[in-house]
Amino acid sequence: METHVLPDLNLSMNLATLRNGSTLGEMVDDCLRHGVTAIAPWRDQVAAVGLKEAARIVESNRLRVTGLCRGGMFPAETAAGRQANIDDNFRAIDEAAALGADCLVLVVGGLPGSSKDIAGARQMVRDGIAAMLPHAKASGVPIAIEPLHPMYAADRACVNTLRQALDVCDVLDPQRSGALGVAIDVFHVWWDSDAWKQIDRAGRERLLAFHVCDWLVPMKDMLLDRGMMGDGVIDIPQYRRAVEAQGYEGFVEVEILSKDWWLRSLDEALDTCIARYQTVV
Amino acid sequence: METHVLPDLNLSMNLATLRNGSTLGEMVDDCLRHGVTAIAPWRDQVAAVGLKEAARIVESNRLRVTGLCRGGMFPAETAAGRQANIDDNFRAIDEAAALGADCLVLVVGGLPGSSKDIAGARQMVRDGIAAMLPHAKASGVPIAIEPLHPMYAADRACVNTLRQALDVCDVLDPQRSGALGVAIDVFHVWWDSDAWKQIDRAGRERLLAFHVCDWLVPMKDMLLDRGMMGDGVIDIPQYRRAVEAQGYEGFVEVEILSKDWWLRSLDEALDTCIARYQTVV
Repeated sequence: METHVLPDLNLSMNLATLRNGSTLGEMVDDCLRHGVTAIAPWRDQVAAVGLKEAARIVESNRLRVTGLCRGGMFPAETAAGRQANIDDNFRAIDEAAALGADCLVLVVGGLPGSSKDIAGARQMVRDGIAAMLPHAKASGVPIAIEPLHPMYAADRACVNTLRQALDVCDVLDPQRSGALGVAIDVFHVWWDSDAWKQIDRAGRERLLAFHVCDWLVPMKDMLLDRGMMGDGVIDIPQYRRAVEAQGYEGFVEVEILSKDWWLRSLDEALDTCIARYQTVV
Repeated sequence: METHVLPDLNLSMNLATLRNGSTLGEMVDDCLRHGVTAIAPWRDQVAAVGLKEAARIVESNRLRVTGLCRGGMFPAETAAGRQANIDDNFRAIDEAAALGADCLVLVVGGLPGSSKDIAGARQMVRDGIAAMLPHAKASGVPIAIEPLHPMYAADRACVNTLRQALDVCDVLDPQRSGALGVAIDVFHVWWDSDAWKQIDRAGRERLLAFHVCDWLVPMKDMLLDRGMMGDGVIDIPQYRRAVEAQGYEGFVEVEILSKDWWLRSLDEALDTCIARYQTVV
């Protein structure tokens, strides 16, 4: 796919970063004005304008879609609930295919209902990914499991380390087909001394996405206080070098879930993301 | 040491649980009224009455002291700062010895200053423990490294998994002398699928303390919203069985850092801890 990426601006905007009430079209226009031609939208942002219109925006602007956020959320208390979740993941694959996304990112889900059985939840995740994988392959949409920080194990994602995510990949895709891999977000893995070994283990076939933001100290909100690159404690270039050493040539996707940044204009957010990308990523 | 422990009440109160403004003496009196004869005080609580008076309270009431909280906090930007931290850990050992504590618990510290070098901080931790270990051995005070949840990696403790803590133990105490081990708090490790293997690896010699509380969903505060056992998502008995399967015969220490519980009376906190200990631990 031909893109309009500027030299040295291998940056994709995850549109969660720009959640200030703007529409998908407005965000895209502003990205383009800043020379950003790669995006990763969220499903609700696509749904708000309709899948067809979203696909038209992507195509007419020759955008690269580095990922669709997000599938997953597999665990449920009942078999019917788990099947409904799998059905939703089938729709997510179809949406990712319609947008020509490089991958569908999975946030796998936490403990269902009042469960205290995290091993059981993890099994539900494996089962769910196994169920969707054939449809993903047939649709040409790679699935990227995103291990989330352990502080989200209960309520968002019970896959919390690269090691766990790659264990799932090895079970479900032993041939390393490229259909199943991981999305690495420095926010989630920066603390993990095992991450380096796991990035090597992943290799190019399993490295499907690379997300950046920063870890602020202190953190005001466990979900919505992620930092702009450079404002926190993460040695981001060390991670970028590690994934690129494995042959990762994809985009660096900026995903900052932050109430503070959502209060600012798209221009300010984009200007700052690009400046920081060029200096601290 | 002879104790007054009631049958089946193998419970120790970590006095962080009772931080409502009471003095050490008041907390101890209330513990004893409830049949709790084992405590784990914090250094500031000891300092507030003076070490000598604290030791007198312990001795005259024939209390078991299951641990002193806390040593650690090794990383610093300068060599002088690191030495000052080591000196403070020597004092912590002396205090633990004066109280007859079963161990000194270490919260090892996070990134010093504006550092982004977590591997460097971890090296400072290893160096600090190495420096204090001879004095701890000579004083008969085992050192318990407490791996803290990864959400505290930046600002409180850069040792975040049992695996990491045991790697430090293996380097510094390869003979498994009993002088160095781990304090396991279910709050910090409950998410970790690797914990079971690491508990087995620790074995009796390295299992120096076992702390319980619960992980609430949602969590209102990253530091001070720990839950009463049974109010959260942790399968506590599964962890207790795992450590006891390794021969751990020590106390179950209740440590709940919670603004909510600190608003209540000592009686209510103790009654609830004991009731939950008997039903969900």
